[in-house]
Amino acid sequence: MQDTLAPLTIEGQFLLHQMFRVRWEPWKALSPEARRAVAEEAAAALGEMEELPGGASAAATILGHKADLMLIHFRPTLDDLQQAELNVSRLGLSGHLEAAGSYVSVVELGLYEMTLKLYEELEGKGLKPNTPEFDTLLAEELSRQRERMRVRLEPVFPPRRYVCFYPMNKKRGEIKNWYAEPVRRRAAMMREHGLIGRRYGERVTQIISGSIGYDDWEWGVDLFADDPLVFKKLVYEMRFDEASSWFGEFGPFWVGLQFHASDLPRYLEGRTPGFRPPSG
Amino acid sequence: MQDTLAPLTIEGQFLLHQMFRVRWEPWKALSPEARRAVAEEAAAALGEMEELPGGASAAATILGHKADLMLIHFRPTLDDLQQAELNVSRLGLSGHLEAAGSYVSVVELGLYEMTLKLYEELEGKGLKPNTPEFDTLLAEELSRQRERMRVRLEPVFPPRRYVCFYPMNKKRGEIKNWYAEPVRRRAAMMREHGLIGRRYGERVTQIISGSIGYDDWEWGVDLFADDPLVFKKLVYEMRFDEASSWFGEFGPFWVGLQFHASDLPRYLEGRTPGFRPPSG
Amino acid sequence: MQDTLAPLTIEGQFLLHQMFRVRWEPWKALSPEARRAVAEEAAAALGEMEELPGGASAAATILGHKADLMLIHFRPTLDDLQQAELNVSRLGLSGHLEAAGSYVSVVELGLYEMTLKLYEELEGKGLKPNTPEFDTLLAEELSRQRERMRVRLEPVFPPRRYVCFYPMNKKRGEIKNWYAEPVRRRAAMMREHGLIGRRYGERVTQIISGSIGYDDWEWGVDLFADDPLVFKKLVYEMRFDEASSWFGEFGPFWVGLQFHASDLPRYLEGRTPGFRPPSG
Amino acid sequence: MQDTLAPLTIEGQFLLHQMFRVRWEPWKALSPEARRAVAEEAAAALGEMEELPGGASAAATILGHKADLMLIHFRPTLDDLQQAELNVSRLGLSGHLEAAGSYVSVVELGLYEMTLKLYEELEGKGLKPNTPEFDTLLAEELSRQRERMRVRLEPVFPPRRYVCFYPMNKKRGEIKNWYAEPVRRRAAMMREHGLIGRRYGERVTQIISGSIGYDDWEWGVDLFADDPLVFKKLVYEMRFDEASSWFGEFGPFWVGLQFHASDLPRYLEGRTPGFRPPSG
Amino acid sequence: MQDTLAPLTIEGQFLLHQMFRVRWEPWKALSPEARRAVAEEAAAALGEMEELPGGASAAATILGHKADLMLIHFRPTLDDLQQAELNVSRLGLSGHLEAAGSYVSVVELGLYEMTLKLYEELEGKGLKPNTPEFDTLLAEELSRQRERMRVRLEPVFPPRRYVCFYPMNKKRGEIKNWYAEPVRRRAAMMREHGLIGRRYGERVTQIISGSIGYDDWEWGVDLFADDPLVFKKLVYEMRFDEASSWFGEFGPFWVGLQFHASDLPRYLEGRTPGFRPPSG
Repeated sequence: MQDTLAPLTIEGQFLLHQMFRVRWEPWKALSPEARRAVAEEAAAALGEMEELPGGASAAATILGHKADLMLIHFRPTLDDLQQAELNVSRLGLSGHLEAAGSYVSVVELGLYEMTLKLYEELEGKGLKPNTPEFDTLLAEELSRQRERMRVRLEPVFPPRRYVCFYPMNKKRGEIKNWYAEPVRRRAAMMREHGLIGRRYGERVTQIISGSIGYDDWEWGVDLFADDPLVFKKLVYEMRFDEASSWFGEFGPFWVGLQFHASDLPRYLEGRTPGFRPPSG
Repeated sequence: MQDTLAPLTIEGQFLLHQMFRVRWEPWKALSPEARRAVAEEAAAALGEMEELPGGASAAATILGHKADLMLIHFRPTLDDLQQAELNVSRLGLSGHLEAAGSYVSVVELGLYEMTLKLYEELEGKGLKPNTPEFDTLLAEELSRQRERMRVRLEPVFPPRRYVCFYPMNKKRGEIKNWYAEPVRRRAAMMREHGLIGRRYGERVTQIISGSIGYDDWEWGVDLFADDPLVFKKLVYEMRFDEASSWFGEFGPFWVGLQFHASDLPRYLEGRTPGFRPPSG
Repeated sequence: MQDTLAPLTIEGQFLLHQMFRVRWEPWKALSPEARRAVAEEAAAALGEMEELPGGASAAATILGHKADLMLIHFRPTLDDLQQAELNVSRLGLSGHLEAAGSYVSVVELGLYEMTLKLYEELEGKGLKPNTPEFDTLLAEELSRQRERMRVRLEPVFPPRRYVCFYPMNKKRGEIKNWYAEPVRRRAAMMREHGLIGRRYGERVTQIISGSIGYDDWEWGVDLFADDPLVFKKLVYEMRFDEASSWFGEFGPFWVGLQFHASDLPRYLEGRTPGFRPPSG
Repeated sequence: MQDTLAPLTIEGQFLLHQMFRVRWEPWKALSPEARRAVAEEAAAALGEMEELPGGASAAATILGHKADLMLIHFRPTLDDLQQAELNVSRLGLSGHLEAAGSYVSVVELGLYEMTLKLYEELEGKGLKPNTPEFDTLLAEELSRQRERMRVRLEPVFPPRRYVCFYPMNKKRGEIKNWYAEPVRRRAAMMREHGLIGRRYGERVTQIISGSIGYDDWEWGVDLFADDPLVFKKLVYEMRFDEASSWFGEFGPFWVGLQFHASDLPRYLEGRTPGFRPPSG
Repeated sequence: MQDTLAPLTIEGQFLLHQMFRVRWEPWKALSPEARRAVAEEAAAALGEMEELPGGASAAATILGHKADLMLIHFRPTLDDLQQAELNVSRLGLSGHLEAAGSYVSVVELGLYEMTLKLYEELEGKGLKPNTPEFDTLLAEELSRQRERMRVRLEPVFPPRRYVCFYPMNKKRGEIKNWYAEPVRRRAAMMREHGLIGRRYGERVTQIISGSIGYDDWEWGVDLFADDPLVFKKLVYEMRFDEASSWFGEFGPFWVGLQFHASDLPRYLEGRTPGFRPPSG
């Protein structure tokens, strides 16, 4: 197994995060009727997107001046994502929003453990990477895994009030360089990293998406929790593990409140929007 | 005790700093009556926020072009913080402000000393971290501490004229990496750091808030003093201690004059607003 | 052969990438007739540019807020590129676009292998670099290669739906410095890098352009594929090879959907534009 | 004497630098009478500020697109500085200016030599730092020095045509770290640095101000000279001394022509404003 | 000779580069007559500046979105440069331009060889630097050199179609630090660097200007050539020499087409402007 081996990954739905500032002043200057019409059109459109089978959208407020509103879209293809973006731009509300950020990525399961196991197994049989036989067996196994993990590849939005999004890289410094670490070392660090995540497993839902080739950082991380202190506790504790302390580079953090499309009009009238976890 | 142990922390109220530029030109173009009405609405709303039980707000000017006005909100939940932000956006004054910065964080007491003591004690009893028994005893002790430190977790705004705010990180370089220092070393550096702070204790009131997972730096620091030279003396002296010289990374500094909501109209008419420390 | 030898390169057509945001609000406010007229004028002009003999242009959407629309122009001279840029600025559509990025470069074939071979051969004959005889033989060989590689120097746009563009540098750090690596080491690293590319050869079409002296990064990379996951797989796998892990520095990534000029009006009406690979 | 000792400093007047772009187009669109009225109001107000006893203001043009106009205010308190900023915002001219930069600082004399001498003396007497007796003697000496150096603490604007302003830091890298250098090494480096300054003493007037805790860099440097080549010669020569070569980090440079308030109208009509050094 | 010796330099004319974006939309909305009047006024004014004795100006297009138009002004004093900038701001065309960049510098000849020679000679005579006798002899020699090099200190614009401008620094890293290299090492590196330049001497005209104390980088470089590929070849080849590979830091690159003022109206009508090298 080559030290420089890239881990196998399985990809799921494509993601677009859209961050907007609301232009409150012209918005407030509209008549209440005009505001209601615009808000209801947007709420209805987002409401449909929340329910889209095979790919949905969710809304959240964002605290602070970086943005007011965040939309997260899951879609099966980049073309669908493009259409989602165009659909938002068609809304009357769009004229009262200002793009303040975005992120393009794809749900990604990084399979360090399985990569080691599979390469050991196939190389144990005397097969060589990048040969047709090796690649066929690899593809078959990945296909089995993809089936097995389907639920995590087409995630639904966790019914949790608070959401935190940030992009990140693995450092490629002049001394500390994730991509120059041997694959077994990387796998060991990711395992330790995963152990911390597992201890928080009940309190936080995490969606990792890959963005190499799509956006300016390498991964996007979405966290959902019922208690926003959990974000701080988790990210702080992880910052001490080796994968993060030496190799994690973090972009901007966006934090806010997930809410249902039907409460968008309430939000647009200046009241913190509500959130009702789905019954059942 | 693992070298990578994260210190225990206790969290208090959530904080939102909002920095605004005033759009003086359209403001000056209003009639004096219009200005008075807008200013008084804002002063009344901020006045109420100053007095909010269980979480208040304060106002300060900011010197230089980065901002003119800073609002600091303490609130028990992120939802309350979101509502505070929305309330400000509803003011007529909001149409004459331009968002120039913000910071989302939560009052944080970092308990390096207690962490060492408690882990030594519990491990001395043969208990292991991340076991139910260990975690229960930890939680009980944290709960006792939280009670004991309640006053510092729900801070009131110090009645001091000058305010200085800045965000900061602990460095994670390729050689110097706070998060890779053993917990006892980190505790020792924080102790030394704290000694300097203590010598300035009477001249400056400090509020530390954590923002890992909430904003783009790891901590926010608010300093309040009766003499602004104290800010420079304190921050300069601290810059030589090891925790800062090798490991401190500092964001933008915002400095200005705290003032009472009732003097907002005076400020908006171009006069340095007054500050009356509360009687008693 | 000097360690600091620069590789020989052959240059082809000049490139201009233009990234635009569409100002949807004023656009939507136009009458359908006005929109149609503007869209058709732009579609016709771009359609002609798509068919330009000896240098063409292509259009793509861009996902996310960094841009909505990207135009890529290939032209034989900088003067032609300047005229292409001016032509776009003359379109009625231009009034609804906002420049959000650009990149100036020239198609470049880096010939590390040939450089080594040629220098070895000429130096083997006792010739010295930077002498008239050496330079003449070098120029003759380059001229032969230029002829042989003409097709790659005047590339046509690959009939593939997805496009990814990013600029990059070779690192000149204080420890890791591409430009201080001996030419044989550089050649070896580029060879390894090329092997990965070759394995993806059927799934992705790559156009490398040089921009030293023209723009803020050293190279631009255009990737075209029928499956956008290939971008991530390729760039991720390459990130582990030595030329990238230690020496690659990457700028912003722009990803989107290539489409034909005739579908521009469709796009401007808010529908994901179509793409028909040329028949045959 | 601890290696980490901070040098003693004496502070004088507070400083605000304000950099503005002039919005020439709406300005040129005013009638000559309107321009004259606005220009004369501003010239009169700045003229008064030039003459303020105990703290004055000066004006300069700035070359290039970073700014057109710079105002420098010296004032005894932050409150006065706030009022100066508000006064400028009240001018009719303010509607034709756009804030393009600023800097908040306080005149600072860094006393490395005296710090060494005094600590040696007091420690020689067996006194210990941070004890009441030590601190009292220190305070008395500082007070004497403050009296002795009063002229440099309340500087007047040097009657020299050219002005150059830039902010700077002392580096805190992972290897080279000013704040981790022993105090005697720092003092030696500052002495060497000062020797160069002294050789330029007649050709350039320098005002150093400290901004730790006030603005985003640690110090501000104002240089005034009759010949602008002196700025380049001085700063270039200093760049080779150890305090600068290894430890200096420099922010943006602003360079321009000092002029008297009475020539502001001339400048606003598009002619390079004049400068008359005060008679006597 | 001290290792930290700064090289002697001779300065010539001051330079201001101004980069502008053209606001095409309002421009296109003008009537053809209005456009013609504005364009002709600007062409006439620039035409006069092209012919200014003792300091001239030139115009170039810039490719890509960073700018559309670049003006370069050579003038004997900063005051003249300020007046040139004000003159441009008076043009009617100015209302259709948006400042997108600028650079302030002074033509500089760096005399590493002469510095070594002269210091060796004077120190050989037993003279000591920074003594009146030494300084007098130095000044006399510099004065002789200035006379001898007058032509290069008051450069005229080379009659070459393509222009490339970029600013640069010499690195002051924590390991690699140009300013900490001994003067003889620096001289040797600059000599090697110069040899490459000399090989390109016939194909490219280079103007180096110093900007320490004037702008945010240390030097500005203007290249002029008849073939824009020469820019890439030259800058790429130089990037491998030691002075650049370890010590060069490069700012943004601006590339475009030099043109004569008389073709400005043509450019403003959307056609690539022409360039006629002066007859003779």
